[in-house]
Amino acid sequence: MAADRVIVYGGKGALGSKCVQHFKSKGWWVACIDMAANEEAHENVLVKMSESFTEQAGQVSTDVAQLLGEQKVDAILCVAGGWAGGSAGSKDLYKNSDLMWKQSVWTSTISSHLATLHLKPGGLLTLSGAKAALTGTGGMVGYGMAKAAVHQLCQSLAAKNSGLPSGAAAVAILPVTLDTPMNRKFMPDADFGSWTPLEYVAEMFFKWTTGADRPASGSLMQIVTSGGETQAVATQ
Amino acid sequence: MAADRVIVYGGKGALGSKCVQHFKSKGWWVACIDMAANEEAHENVLVKMSESFTEQAGQVSTDVAQLLGEQKVDAILCVAGGWAGGSAGSKDLYKNSDLMWKQSVWTSTISSHLATLHLKPGGLLTLSGAKAALTGTGGMVGYGMAKAAVHQLCQSLAAKNSGLPSGAAAVAILPVTLDTPMNRKFMPDADFGSWTPLEYVAEMFFKWTTGADRPASGSLMQIVTSGGETQAVATQ
Repeated sequence: MAADRVIVYGGKGALGSKCVQHFKSKGWWVACIDMAANEEAHENVLVKMSESFTEQAGQVSTDVAQLLGEQKVDAILCVAGGWAGGSAGSKDLYKNSDLMWKQSVWTSTISSHLATLHLKPGGLLTLSGAKAALTGTGGMVGYGMAKAAVHQLCQSLAAKNSGLPSGAAAVAILPVTLDTPMNRKFMPDADFGSWTPLEYVAEMFFKWTTGADRPASGSLMQIVTSGGETQAVATQ
Repeated sequence: MAADRVIVYGGKGALGSKCVQHFKSKGWWVACIDMAANEEAHENVLVKMSESFTEQAGQVSTDVAQLLGEQKVDAILCVAGGWAGGSAGSKDLYKNSDLMWKQSVWTSTISSHLATLHLKPGGLLTLSGAKAALTGTGGMVGYGMAKAAVHQLCQSLAAKNSGLPSGAAAVAILPVTLDTPMNRKFMPDADFGSWTPLEYVAEMFFKWTTGADRPASGSLMQIVTSGGETQAVATQ
């Protein structure tokens, strides 16, 4: 019996590591794509830093093709990302916008192309957006732009002839705040009951991957946690 | 009397050249930012090609600061942009997405920062979006992402503390097809009556700059032409 297979783009990060663990605990083969290796993953593809998108995208695509050969995967989970603030007037605008595009838009674009090449029919691609970017984000301009681009990419992937295999779906998650060690460190006095547990997201991805409650392709799923309860609601 | 001043980012392109001409014909001082000089402009800032956004953004910002000194401008019109197609499965996805970000997102981000530094109170920044990118664009993935980012940027600039001077506005235009020589060349059999004349856009910018019918900051103005008649309608 062929093992179920998943690729986690950003699999060394907080959410990515949780996804690697979760799918592995279910007996899946897990490959991680990130700047550093996740030793828990069965395989790792290391992303080389570059100022050139086409160079980095080409390198990752080549390495994934070499790893997979003719084998297809059931899911590609793009959970790469990051956060940086600053208004349009910030002296860090250029640096931070650049970082946000690299962390969110580059990774999402590469994941989308990988999905067209390596996903099984009926497979799942997830992308990571942000609820905040559904409207303006004056205090975090680069972040908002990058996430808005990811949302629109998800909608493009739902189109006919998007390049995804037949029956495959692209779904974006739009969290508010994820309950990561980094966020706890930098916001120690926040209301953790309004933060989304990483386990919730990992288990949700697992359900969607195996077909349960999978949203329609192109869905922008807002992930909202309140009083410790989390709900995933499609953006209308 | 101090002359009215406008910066046209992308002032060597089809729409940009028309804007340079139009504002000049009204007696304005016009500076052009582009890869090549527009000899009709009073001043030119040349953008150096770079794979690094921070490098290019820094270069343009330094050169504009040197050109203007303490002088402020009434308007910054970002009409830089371009078009490239391709689905997520296209072999040109990476190359074309990269080009779209450079042509639309880089220029819009730089224009926004320049506006926070050099625009007069009550001044105008225009950005160039696309009506198509309000939803998914499966056949032109990079273009859609870049334009969606520009739309969200425009909304961010309308926020309090966006960094824009008091009373200044950011407005994005969302055309369908502009009536440019290039579009006529590549789509010779199209219905030109549904294409927006460049003069309409240049005159609209002039009116908005001088205060007439200026939309609220953050507006995404759809520019729709039908039977030779053009209307600008705010996206709800």
